[in-house]
Amino acid sequence: MLGQDQPVILHLIDIPQAQKALTGVAMELGDCAFPLLRDIVCTDNLSVGFKDVQAALLVGAKPRSKGMERGDLLLENAKIFVPQGKALNDHAHRDVKTLIVGNPANTNCLITATHAKDLPKENFAAMTRLDHDRAVWQVAEKTGSPVPSVEKVVVWGNHSPTMFPDLTWATVNGRPALDIVGQEWYTKTFIPRVQKRGAEIIEARGLSSAASAGNAALAHMRSWFLGHTHDWVSFGAWSNGNTYGVPEGLYYSFPVTIQNQKWSVVNGLNISPEQRQRMVHTANELLEERKAIESILKV
Amino acid sequence: MLGQDQPVILHLIDIPQAQKALTGVAMELGDCAFPLLRDIVCTDNLSVGFKDVQAALLVGAKPRSKGMERGDLLLENAKIFVPQGKALNDHAHRDVKTLIVGNPANTNCLITATHAKDLPKENFAAMTRLDHDRAVWQVAEKTGSPVPSVEKVVVWGNHSPTMFPDLTWATVNGRPALDIVGQEWYTKTFIPRVQKRGAEIIEARGLSSAASAGNAALAHMRSWFLGHTHDWVSFGAWSNGNTYGVPEGLYYSFPVTIQNQKWSVVNGLNISPEQRQRMVHTANELLEERKAIESILKV
Repeated sequence: MLGQDQPVILHLIDIPQAQKALTGVAMELGDCAFPLLRDIVCTDNLSVGFKDVQAALLVGAKPRSKGMERGDLLLENAKIFVPQGKALNDHAHRDVKTLIVGNPANTNCLITATHAKDLPKENFAAMTRLDHDRAVWQVAEKTGSPVPSVEKVVVWGNHSPTMFPDLTWATVNGRPALDIVGQEWYTKTFIPRVQKRGAEIIEARGLSSAASAGNAALAHMRSWFLGHTHDWVSFGAWSNGNTYGVPEGLYYSFPVTIQNQKWSVVNGLNISPEQRQRMVHTANELLEERKAIESILKV
Repeated sequence: MLGQDQPVILHLIDIPQAQKALTGVAMELGDCAFPLLRDIVCTDNLSVGFKDVQAALLVGAKPRSKGMERGDLLLENAKIFVPQGKALNDHAHRDVKTLIVGNPANTNCLITATHAKDLPKENFAAMTRLDHDRAVWQVAEKTGSPVPSVEKVVVWGNHSPTMFPDLTWATVNGRPALDIVGQEWYTKTFIPRVQKRGAEIIEARGLSSAASAGNAALAHMRSWFLGHTHDWVSFGAWSNGNTYGVPEGLYYSFPVTIQNQKWSVVNGLNISPEQRQRMVHTANELLEERKAIESILKV
């Protein structure tokens, strides 16, 4: 994740009830005899866990239980992410890069970044890499092409079924993807499939996607730390309000490239009315989510 | 596992009842957008699954259920590994390298190799890499050293609590490991801990080791395909009867180095009477296991 010669100290944080199992996870990590793993710290204390960390992956969140309203879900998760934001603010390395994987990831990211008030908003991200990789794979599979031949795929917006997986600029071996896959497959199969891929996996496996989410988190961080300039990649990034009409302060998935550990939104793309409509739709969902937890955003 | 530029087609075999979940696994593998993964075949048919494969990882086996005798366990597993050996023989690439992970791994390996009668015995292996890596990690942790500074660790024999994790020649940064860790820690802590590490993991996690076993399987195959000459590594390999007094035809863990996809046992090591006793003890267990399934070995 951080390169072939970067030694790593892992800090593993879990709730008190999970500490014994966490010890077991640490044993297995040791038993892998990874050449770069230098130490493992297991803790239920956020101050210890986030102490001096340079990369933080926040993967734990509360899933929706039966009968729970969306607003309740957001507030329950706020209880998890407010203290994590504060602990990052008080204890982490000043350049820490934080990826929020736990859902609802974009709004959890907003909460975390807000409470890490002294850290740059640009150093927090919501994970949409899994959506991006799912979109790439759909095109690769449909066209019978190797994954690396698929480029310039974009996922816009929220990591939720309102996201907009966009093939407008996508190419397969340099040729426009839409010319190969066709408009009908794009709108009727590709877009809904990527949007609802999580449910499709649960239906087949009887369990949520796990390995692919883990892989996407590693891929996201690898791109962030080591750069990603050969292609665009989707990144749930802080909106400054000046880019593609996305309201300021949302964490919204944009196409980015990454150099020297700084992401930049791919600029100057021409947005059609159809694209605009989908981009606004998913932004509106994020505005509603923000409204539902606005009391939480007072620091 | 096979190098940074080797495209891969995965064949995933599982029992009929697991085909739907297997489809979910294949979806997640696709969603990882791995650059080298070209295709995934899911099947419950061994002829299809083993067709032309060049690397086979046999990870499924029947665990011991309550009240089951060891002999019954061996015979139940024979039912799984006899048809896999035959299918490899009839359908796999003639150079296929096969790793048996499912326990009892060494005897399952013997059964598989015996029924793959036209394939070289040297191209089958029982996995003791997890034991090897566990041993390396114990020394690294005890001495506070990075994993790569620990060399020449050996695991002899059966992948079972009779195995002999041997530090006689082990070094830490070139210095004899036993001089640093001491004889008492070696015999009273290290040896039993590595032998019973599986039980320790189950006690902590409430589940068998999984990620570390998966990592060891990848590491074993990587060493086999890409070479392993910088250090010794433990490998459950076919005994020709002329090496360290191990009876012919057992799959027994030896220290090996690997070049051009061929393993060679590290020769000429001086064995003390204490070592000999432990090496014979674990060989005797393998002889007993072979006796318990000898009817299965008639091809």
